[in-house]
Amino acid sequence: MPYVENRTILGIDPGLANTGWGVIRQRGPRLSCVAYGCISTSADMDLPSRLLKLHDQMELVVKRFEPTCLGIETIWFGANVTAGILTSQARGAVLVACASQGLSIGEFTPKQIKLAVVGEGNSDKMQVQYMVKQLLSLDDPPHPDHAADALAAAICYVTHGPRTA
Amino acid sequence: MPYVENRTILGIDPGLANTGWGVIRQRGPRLSCVAYGCISTSADMDLPSRLLKLHDQMELVVKRFEPTCLGIETIWFGANVTAGILTSQARGAVLVACASQGLSIGEFTPKQIKLAVVGEGNSDKMQVQYMVKQLLSLDDPPHPDHAADALAAAICYVTHGPRTA
Repeated sequence: MPYVENRTILGIDPGLANTGWGVIRQRGPRLSCVAYGCISTSADMDLPSRLLKLHDQMELVVKRFEPTCLGIETIWFGANVTAGILTSQARGAVLVACASQGLSIGEFTPKQIKLAVVGEGNSDKMQVQYMVKQLLSLDDPPHPDHAADALAAAICYVTHGPRTA
Repeated sequence: MPYVENRTILGIDPGLANTGWGVIRQRGPRLSCVAYGCISTSADMDLPSRLLKLHDQMELVVKRFEPTCLGIETIWFGANVTAGILTSQARGAVLVACASQGLSIGEFTPKQIKLAVVGEGNSDKMQVQYMVKQLLSLDDPPHPDHAADALAAAICYVTHGPRTA
């Protein structure tokens, strides 16, 4: 009997103000959506408190859904280096929450994720949302964008993640 | 009777391969060194595991010495953006460990730290090490560099940190 992948995959779109997350279930070629959401932190809070909130809330997600795999975007630096530094720190905070659970990790560029989900590396947000809805058989495209991007990272893990035994 | 500052200050020099830390005690104008060290992670480990080690070891430092204040360097991006992204994620991981203890935080540029410790913003590592040794009445300059830089960040907090009540 052939081996059938049967696993729960967490996807994360890291950000200091908004970190999107999504949990999908893979059983062989079938994908389904378990849950998704977005952790937001206010600019009124100091940086350590914002990072702690991201960490603690992500830890709750990991403990609740017990994923064994993680798909996460690599950091991309646009014109705004300051924003990139803040996003990187947020990424560090949520990765700590995931590491304590011993998840297998796949890191993907935005282009890899778009290619895996839409089949086109330059696709826009609407196309990603539409394909996430189709691939996970959702009634509506997931909102906010951050959650859709997180689900897309989880879907990317299915085809591009490291092989599990 | 005038108010006398009496507090324990943690300094951190964040880095993925090496995160320096130092704890100093301030009683009025007197400074003393409580402890210092360096948390190292191997490139053989995956990124989440390295971040988790930094977080967990820093949490032990914070719980053991119970500082109420934290001085930490801002992230500086040189030519190597990849290194900056990794340092930022390390910074996020250790800040989570500090935030859970509710530390008051002061963030300083390397130049601010050198100015506060040596009196000269362009001073080199040897000068910083020498002044850290003098200001904390140590027998020898602290090693490694990362620990000396962490102690320098803690000393900078004394004069440049946010006022505590």
